[in-house]
Amino acid sequence: MDLTKFFEIVLKLKGVERTGWTERGVKMPETSSDHSFMTGLMTLVLGKGRKLDLDKAVRMALVHDLPEAILGDIITKENWEKGGSMREKDKIQKERPAMKKISSLAGDPEILELWEEFEAQKTTEAKFVKAVDRIATIVQAVEYHKKGNYKKPVEGFWDEKGLSMIKDPELRKLALSYIKSLGKKK
Amino acid sequence: MDLTKFFEIVLKLKGVERTGWTERGVKMPETSSDHSFMTGLMTLVLGKGRKLDLDKAVRMALVHDLPEAILGDIITKENWEKGGSMREKDKIQKERPAMKKISSLAGDPEILELWEEFEAQKTTEAKFVKAVDRIATIVQAVEYHKKGNYKKPVEGFWDEKGLSMIKDPELRKLALSYIKSLGKKK
Repeated sequence: MDLTKFFEIVLKLKGVERTGWTERGVKMPETSSDHSFMTGLMTLVLGKGRKLDLDKAVRMALVHDLPEAILGDIITKENWEKGGSMREKDKIQKERPAMKKISSLAGDPEILELWEEFEAQKTTEAKFVKAVDRIATIVQAVEYHKKGNYKKPVEGFWDEKGLSMIKDPELRKLALSYIKSLGKKK
Repeated sequence: MDLTKFFEIVLKLKGVERTGWTERGVKMPETSSDHSFMTGLMTLVLGKGRKLDLDKAVRMALVHDLPEAILGDIITKENWEKGGSMREKDKIQKERPAMKKISSLAGDPEILELWEEFEAQKTTEAKFVKAVDRIATIVQAVEYHKKGNYKKPVEGFWDEKGLSMIKDPELRKLALSYIKSLGKKK
């Protein structure tokens, strides 16, 4: 356990620009810490009243991208065939040691456990946080689209394929209604 | 309840540069969402094993700065006599309607309740999150100091007065050990 080192590492998330945006020429893009905050907050709000362990889900949302503090934001081929540098399973292999290090520096094995649970995508909470993660990204993509802040189109996040990545019907409906707000405001 | 509007508002936190840094000429400073993420994560890590409702504390950390999405980051005279634009109690009065609006758009009265509890500073969780909020700010100040990213000195965050704002002895000790790491690395 070394909290000083832990703080030093996680601080870096504030400077990790998300590759999904930089690859599309977004200026001053959202960082990993921006995204993790939004995923945490949205998990809290959207998870209310659902049959799940909401507190576990919020914790999971907060830690789900911590490896990026060491490795940066890796796009997988599953997420974007053209831009992805590796397969999802290879990304997980690469991120695991980083996560072990961070969890150990924090002196908190639960951080690693939550991340493993998220990546395994077996539990209700893991699936829920993954869907919220996606919605948080779509909401941001819509914002960049509205502002014209992109060089390559960002619609891929909310086209049919993008939306199909949200498995939960209720959450997919929510994402869709957000996307529709685009038309009204343009 | 209007989640589309809620998302649109909270998104703005990614662009709210913290006044404590802009006033001191820090370039590309931390935003409110960066800070809220770090406060949430640190609450999770530092709160483990303490006699408190950790999940309530994590939720509180996530929502404690939400009014800034509407009002921006207001420095109080209590925090910085020279730069503060109003007293703490006036800031709370100003922020309350903003928080009511955000909580109502989210369809979640707990958001407002958590914020009121934080601002009242009566409960164990509120006091703990306030201390962590302070530590997160000190950790960031140390980083800017190390990198020389400031025009006016940032030491005020961790001088005697700055540290005295952390009431919990264990957390004050932790902050102190982080500050000492400054000497080793320079």
